[in-house]
Amino acid sequence: MAHLSTLEADTSARINQTIDAFFERNIAQAGKVSPFYTLLWQDMHRLIRSGGKRLRPRMVMRSYKAFGGNDCDSILPVAAAQELLHMALLIHDDIIDRDYIRYGVENITGKYEDQHYSGVLDDKDRLHYAQSAALLAGDLLLSGSYQLMLDSHIDPASLLEIQKIHSRSIFEVAGGELLDTESAFRPLDSIDAKTVALYKTASYTFTGPLLIGAILAAAPSKDVAYLKDFAHSLGIAYQLRDDIIGVFGDEKEIGKTTIGDIREGKHTYMVEQFYELAGDGDIVFFKLYFGDKDIQKSEVEAIKELFVSSGALQHTENKIIEYAMSARNALAHISSHTDMNELLELVSIVTERRK
Amino acid sequence: MAHLSTLEADTSARINQTIDAFFERNIAQAGKVSPFYTLLWQDMHRLIRSGGKRLRPRMVMRSYKAFGGNDCDSILPVAAAQELLHMALLIHDDIIDRDYIRYGVENITGKYEDQHYSGVLDDKDRLHYAQSAALLAGDLLLSGSYQLMLDSHIDPASLLEIQKIHSRSIFEVAGGELLDTESAFRPLDSIDAKTVALYKTASYTFTGPLLIGAILAAAPSKDVAYLKDFAHSLGIAYQLRDDIIGVFGDEKEIGKTTIGDIREGKHTYMVEQFYELAGDGDIVFFKLYFGDKDIQKSEVEAIKELFVSSGALQHTENKIIEYAMSARNALAHISSHTDMNELLELVSIVTERRK
Repeated sequence: MAHLSTLEADTSARINQTIDAFFERNIAQAGKVSPFYTLLWQDMHRLIRSGGKRLRPRMVMRSYKAFGGNDCDSILPVAAAQELLHMALLIHDDIIDRDYIRYGVENITGKYEDQHYSGVLDDKDRLHYAQSAALLAGDLLLSGSYQLMLDSHIDPASLLEIQKIHSRSIFEVAGGELLDTESAFRPLDSIDAKTVALYKTASYTFTGPLLIGAILAAAPSKDVAYLKDFAHSLGIAYQLRDDIIGVFGDEKEIGKTTIGDIREGKHTYMVEQFYELAGDGDIVFFKLYFGDKDIQKSEVEAIKELFVSSGALQHTENKIIEYAMSARNALAHISSHTDMNELLELVSIVTERRK
Repeated sequence: MAHLSTLEADTSARINQTIDAFFERNIAQAGKVSPFYTLLWQDMHRLIRSGGKRLRPRMVMRSYKAFGGNDCDSILPVAAAQELLHMALLIHDDIIDRDYIRYGVENITGKYEDQHYSGVLDDKDRLHYAQSAALLAGDLLLSGSYQLMLDSHIDPASLLEIQKIHSRSIFEVAGGELLDTESAFRPLDSIDAKTVALYKTASYTFTGPLLIGAILAAAPSKDVAYLKDFAHSLGIAYQLRDDIIGVFGDEKEIGKTTIGDIREGKHTYMVEQFYELAGDGDIVFFKLYFGDKDIQKSEVEAIKELFVSSGALQHTENKIIEYAMSARNALAHISSHTDMNELLELVSIVTERRK
């Protein structure tokens, strides 16, 4: 996120302490099993401390405070658990996307292939077994997200209610991930980009964490329903902004190339809008280069220009404004918050960010 | 398991009903996301109903009854959750082992490769994306095992205690799986087969389910500690018996080839014993063919004969008897059971089975 206040920085530090304690405990336990198991746990710890904005734990904390929660320490494990889930999903995502780098460092697959298995396996098998280690790592952090929540000092009935939301998030994000994967080869009109955004992004990034924070602060169910609407709108807006940044962002600012999404032919709302709005000639050109692994810089620029000239970019910007308004409207219905700003701020942070 | 009484058959039927209800609910929810997501959930349901002995849920029930539990219906979701965990692990195991068949039918990878993705993907990508669907399926059932437990009508504090055991099982089985995978290419003496058996097999097949059943029946913690010893001994004995059956079993009876373990060079306790006991000449011969992908029938027979003549088979049989005695000894220390036979029976069933 763009703006990180002192308060938020402090929250992030406490989240990191909770995460560190979780890993230190598990690394010690793994040592009783085998030094090879210790390696895997150390690698997971290294990876999670190499980056990440702790966005999801901070969503839990913001929502908790917005609804008057005042014992932040007691809910730290629940908040930090959201980051373990995020890491589990990233590790498994990277297997699906055949990526070896995350946060600018080797991910689990990369580390195992490059180091742990390089002396003992031949080239043919090395990637497969490195991915197998990553597969187990993701499983451990998925289960670990439930496990860490058990450390919270909150009443058991509330904790069970929170676990239901947590499992619902996982159900949704796996569905979104499946659709996102399949959208690369299914007909364009069989999978809707906003649906993917709702399930893949909104679910465990906004809906789950915000609802969890609210329930921990004992928000009334009427307000929780509006908070859900808020989270859905915010989550979709977040994804649409992400799609725009992925193509038009400042490479220095975002720290990665803006060619990737075009080269991979990523199915986004902006792409759907292009097909709606563009003329036949432009569509022919677009289809020729969009998703072309060997695309050149000049054609990338031409594709970008088509997003602008067709109106697809503007339509997407308008859609973000629409969702930002929906999000603010949903908030206006919430009556029990004590600090509306905790949530209201999110709308501009999410929709106006440049990276 | 060899003997399935009428009572046990009834338990299995109720476990299956609980599993069916879980899948029907999730299939309906998946339909709201996308027809493609429904397919994945239907495939998981098909697979779990294609086989499996419901061994782990039945362990929960047996332990619960042994310690005087008398409201079996209330704990069905907790018991059935053990089968979801088992299925999650099998699905991910099959990715690691590059298998496409489970219970004699296509597993998730097999089904996606052969059917769902056959019209839309070329050969090169089909396996990768089919495995990606299987990866998500395993994640869903791993999370589903926590989710299903939440349906139980037991007090929240007990449920949280059970989740701690559940997450401990997952921690242990993932460690065991990592070691088992690495034992194929790590030096023989760096990974001990009994350690692998303890973590990969005993953990979530015996220790977790038996402890969960006991805690649900409010067994005193002193007894739970002995039950843990019982589970460890039983679990290792189970694995050693499995290893013997894998080589010497009756192919008709066990429904699979007994060449597999020799062809793959599976690192078992019996193999460790062979290296301890055999003469240099026999070891040279053994190393030549054990793990040879193109091994012939006559050499398989020669390897089997070496397990017999070296005494490795007999030592393994003796070890099973030793663990069976340890298991019975542990039981003898337990004072609060109401039906000792529920647990005592397991010793002979597990150690004397032929398939």
